[in-house]
Amino acid sequence: MKAIELQAPGGIDNLRMVERPKPEPGRQEMIIKVKATALNYRDVEIARGSYHTAFALPLIPLSDGVGEVVAVGAEVTRFKVGDRVCGTFWQRWVGGSFAMAEPAYQRGGPIDGLLSEFARLDEQAAVPAPPHLSDIEAATLPCAAVTAWHALFTEGRLKPGETVLSLGTGGVSLFAVQFAAAAGARVIVTSSSDGKLARAKALGAHDGVNYRRDPDWATAVLTLTGGRGADHIIEVGGPQSFDQSLKAAARGAQINVIGYLGGSDGAINPLDIFRRQVRARGIPVGSRETFEAMNRALLVNGLRPVIDRVFPWMEAAEAFRHLEHGSPFGKVVLDHTQ
Amino acid sequence: MKAIELQAPGGIDNLRMVERPKPEPGRQEMIIKVKATALNYRDVEIARGSYHTAFALPLIPLSDGVGEVVAVGAEVTRFKVGDRVCGTFWQRWVGGSFAMAEPAYQRGGPIDGLLSEFARLDEQAAVPAPPHLSDIEAATLPCAAVTAWHALFTEGRLKPGETVLSLGTGGVSLFAVQFAAAAGARVIVTSSSDGKLARAKALGAHDGVNYRRDPDWATAVLTLTGGRGADHIIEVGGPQSFDQSLKAAARGAQINVIGYLGGSDGAINPLDIFRRQVRARGIPVGSRETFEAMNRALLVNGLRPVIDRVFPWMEAAEAFRHLEHGSPFGKVVLDHTQ
Amino acid sequence: MKAIELQAPGGIDNLRMVERPKPEPGRQEMIIKVKATALNYRDVEIARGSYHTAFALPLIPLSDGVGEVVAVGAEVTRFKVGDRVCGTFWQRWVGGSFAMAEPAYQRGGPIDGLLSEFARLDEQAAVPAPPHLSDIEAATLPCAAVTAWHALFTEGRLKPGETVLSLGTGGVSLFAVQFAAAAGARVIVTSSSDGKLARAKALGAHDGVNYRRDPDWATAVLTLTGGRGADHIIEVGGPQSFDQSLKAAARGAQINVIGYLGGSDGAINPLDIFRRQVRARGIPVGSRETFEAMNRALLVNGLRPVIDRVFPWMEAAEAFRHLEHGSPFGKVVLDHTQ
Amino acid sequence: MKAIELQAPGGIDNLRMVERPKPEPGRQEMIIKVKATALNYRDVEIARGSYHTAFALPLIPLSDGVGEVVAVGAEVTRFKVGDRVCGTFWQRWVGGSFAMAEPAYQRGGPIDGLLSEFARLDEQAAVPAPPHLSDIEAATLPCAAVTAWHALFTEGRLKPGETVLSLGTGGVSLFAVQFAAAAGARVIVTSSSDGKLARAKALGAHDGVNYRRDPDWATAVLTLTGGRGADHIIEVGGPQSFDQSLKAAARGAQINVIGYLGGSDGAINPLDIFRRQVRARGIPVGSRETFEAMNRALLVNGLRPVIDRVFPWMEAAEAFRHLEHGSPFGKVVLDHTQ
Repeated sequence: MKAIELQAPGGIDNLRMVERPKPEPGRQEMIIKVKATALNYRDVEIARGSYHTAFALPLIPLSDGVGEVVAVGAEVTRFKVGDRVCGTFWQRWVGGSFAMAEPAYQRGGPIDGLLSEFARLDEQAAVPAPPHLSDIEAATLPCAAVTAWHALFTEGRLKPGETVLSLGTGGVSLFAVQFAAAAGARVIVTSSSDGKLARAKALGAHDGVNYRRDPDWATAVLTLTGGRGADHIIEVGGPQSFDQSLKAAARGAQINVIGYLGGSDGAINPLDIFRRQVRARGIPVGSRETFEAMNRALLVNGLRPVIDRVFPWMEAAEAFRHLEHGSPFGKVVLDHTQ
Repeated sequence: MKAIELQAPGGIDNLRMVERPKPEPGRQEMIIKVKATALNYRDVEIARGSYHTAFALPLIPLSDGVGEVVAVGAEVTRFKVGDRVCGTFWQRWVGGSFAMAEPAYQRGGPIDGLLSEFARLDEQAAVPAPPHLSDIEAATLPCAAVTAWHALFTEGRLKPGETVLSLGTGGVSLFAVQFAAAAGARVIVTSSSDGKLARAKALGAHDGVNYRRDPDWATAVLTLTGGRGADHIIEVGGPQSFDQSLKAAARGAQINVIGYLGGSDGAINPLDIFRRQVRARGIPVGSRETFEAMNRALLVNGLRPVIDRVFPWMEAAEAFRHLEHGSPFGKVVLDHTQ
Repeated sequence: MKAIELQAPGGIDNLRMVERPKPEPGRQEMIIKVKATALNYRDVEIARGSYHTAFALPLIPLSDGVGEVVAVGAEVTRFKVGDRVCGTFWQRWVGGSFAMAEPAYQRGGPIDGLLSEFARLDEQAAVPAPPHLSDIEAATLPCAAVTAWHALFTEGRLKPGETVLSLGTGGVSLFAVQFAAAAGARVIVTSSSDGKLARAKALGAHDGVNYRRDPDWATAVLTLTGGRGADHIIEVGGPQSFDQSLKAAARGAQINVIGYLGGSDGAINPLDIFRRQVRARGIPVGSRETFEAMNRALLVNGLRPVIDRVFPWMEAAEAFRHLEHGSPFGKVVLDHTQ
Repeated sequence: MKAIELQAPGGIDNLRMVERPKPEPGRQEMIIKVKATALNYRDVEIARGSYHTAFALPLIPLSDGVGEVVAVGAEVTRFKVGDRVCGTFWQRWVGGSFAMAEPAYQRGGPIDGLLSEFARLDEQAAVPAPPHLSDIEAATLPCAAVTAWHALFTEGRLKPGETVLSLGTGGVSLFAVQFAAAAGARVIVTSSSDGKLARAKALGAHDGVNYRRDPDWATAVLTLTGGRGADHIIEVGGPQSFDQSLKAAARGAQINVIGYLGGSDGAINPLDIFRRQVRARGIPVGSRETFEAMNRALLVNGLRPVIDRVFPWMEAAEAFRHLEHGSPFGKVVLDHTQ
């Protein structure tokens, strides 16, 4: 079968189409014909070699994707041939606390990803694709959407009427906007682009703050909330935005530490966590149980992922470069049928 | 000042207008001029003498109401003259677990209620009325709405995509429909009236089941949910409906035991709680923190209580009879300005 | 290999030693040489045919046991040959809510149990046996101990200083006494035997109530707690004891509905759940994550299961009869090495 | 009555004995005759003027103390004359989330503390003193002990078998050692003194790490836990120790940010919260409900606060200096009866 490998020494230029043997299903496994895959910034970093962990190469990239079951191994009871499934990010985190997520089993590194014709999945590491979504849409769910859901609901226990501050308009942040709005929360989004703010409002955000025009955007958030601050913050800015996030936080607020789109350098005084009485926690994508809960919400509320652009999967390197430099609004997807 | 008392030996016919001294505020207290009050079935039962606890008479009825602050005592810092406030059901349950709710401090029995011109409130036992609501609307919140919110969010931690089954169309049940729909849940409602089912759908319910036409309504709920059952049940039917509620419950479902509109006699085998692996719990209205959280959600989502009928407050006995026998859809409210 | 089957039409007299092929490990599986197994009342009921679900026969009984890994299949990373492991009750409930526990995968029915020379285990359905325990002791953990732990800690979030009421001295109840005492709780135990009460106190119970001498034992519990009642109740008595459990419960108490040693017939008025403001919930053993958490506590606190009697495994029928009629104090274990 | 005031411009030398009018109880208030008070590092900082918030002077210091009720105002129902009570730190945080703790109502600043002959307490801001404790012991509970309890149990939901790392041997840390040991946790403590480590072990700690001898004490913690790390960390070291705390943390660990005994300057990269997948949160003492839960645990487990030294209350300045420079092991208490 065809697959695209990241070959040593890494770098987007070292993504190469190769032939690999078509996989066979073992006990409790199934083979899917991959229909579509989607990119996360993690994939760009792994390809560039800037991810905080280095994985052995060659590696098939991409944790996110959807496919059709074409073969099942012994003792498979959750799926049957013909089912349409999404893979999960953590191959062995079915449910429970993050301590149950075995680190060696992350799809797209260190485990091979889905950027191939076929893939082998443990039936415990897959969920039915939401029936109302196209393949292109369903491919985007495993990493960014589950991260947003895990932050807001599994960990955050978001209630209607609370305020969610979603930084920027990357993949996780846009899913957070959609989920929080569907859950009856008030949603504030930040961006450097008025156009993107307008599009985020069309997705359900109540207010937008342009952080380029207003570098002290935390004060804008405080003003919008009558001085109370945000109850939940999707902190994807990194060390450069963290002080503003602390300032924009309500007493007892939850700061979900997820990414560093503004760069990974910088520092805070950890006593500010005490002084402002917030909760800051890392968000490690989420379990299969979280994925399934999210899919029920997508279906009940008719939510659809925002797609920025679709590339034929053989143009994967172009897609990586578009995510890296193209400032997309929504997910970048690879179509495996063309 | 004027007040309406329930006089011995009880019964709706023993509601009498009386003159009482206008109250004076003590430390941390304020006096409100009552603008509107609302009835709950608990009030009818207290008046009839059929409530499970008997209170000393005479008693001013009604836990629910809204008023304007006209005087404040020493050390009042949460409110000022002119503020519009709702009283809380539990006078001393500010937050935390139900063990903190001191039983002797329930408004409307054993403590005097709000069916009077003026009332004395501890500032800890009041919340700002939601600004988008009229007095008539805001008066309905303290008991039924807080009960529904406490069941679904404080205790139930409802997530978008979960299924809420709300039995009947009484006060708690209609608030549950509105709250659950605003939170992105799927909502199923039961009623003996197709007309009421249609009105519940207009409030956000996705599906309705007519339990008169379909006495095995649990099977209808299972069918609507693909065999999964409901995740949250607003159980106001009582012993007569409990077996159906158990049958309609998803594995791990939360059954909120709140009322007994179908009568208080009947029995279940408690092992069915084990066999069906559900959680059944009493819902004791809720704390002030719950009330404040709910009010934020009402405001963000523009939710408005459903009002069935408004009576001048001097016609309180008529209002009690309407709630008892009139099969209202929505709250029965007393206007203290006419 | 040798195994003991429950053959049709059921009944303890239809436990028969048979020869079965020695199992081979598939992907992610391992073969253990069984060292010891232990009985639960569920096993007696399955054997008698009185369990609430009927399973296909022949069936190898017993969910509980410990063994040594003698072979591993492909992709096994959690264990290696020579490790000593306990199997889990739910073969696929790794963590998360009970909705993740696939009902078809319960060990000892419908899936074959461990009453055999060798057994095949998915590596996800096993935990390391606590190193300080003998095989006889470790065999007793998967069902009764995990049930007690799940009730008190996973669901119950027991805090030091709370009161635990453990009904009777069966397997779950004695583990609950030990766990609650180790967690700094106050423990009250009931029994019909003063001798058993004395032994329960030696395990950590602070007080005992003889329910034969004092049929209104709920009043005794209220007296012992200054009128407050118990915060957590291990309800294994069933419908006959439930009214007393409701009476002995503190406001907001958690009633863990687990068993029916007093018989399965009887009824309660479900409104008492509301009137007494308790939480009643079924306890379905627990997940692997719960098992692992419990094992850490056993080790840190040097806790050891109470063993009533050990039988050679070829005398399994005698062991079943001893559990059924012998009124044991502690677990009944089968030694597979003799 | 006599009282000791902190007078402008602050500094321990500006603690002065003054005469103040004996307080009178208002509605829901009571007057206590103060029996003993206790010092926290917060009090030293307020006196020095180095606390992160500045309060208006003169101010009566000290949040912690115990007294006997000598008068009650109108509508007091929780206490009666003769009761022995501890005051709470937050005068209006009865229960619920920290958002309910009104910031203007902290005892010892901005509200006058208990360093006086008599004090006026709202009955909602007091708890019964544990009957097994002396006045000297009971005086130490409101701030440090409640902080430790809130961190480990209210927020932390500590389970038996988890590992608690308590930094240093200050007031909060020693209470954490005692509470965690009573709850069946494994406890590791750090200190620069082998003598203090030995005394902490006598209180229940399982292991001690001398951070002077072993500046990379995080590695020692990892070694002691087989590489797993600590599940709960009592982080009172501040920015200087935070990196080591992050390194010593288990995946998903809870880092309770409480103090800065090592100084308030320093920085971390907040992405380490993501990379190490921890939860870091401020701990703001705790609510009255937390205090009451703690007191039940103290009683059931016979726990007693560790007292370093008792001073006559007229020697308050000496006591402040002893806490500041004397390196006490246990609480510094003022006896108001001598």
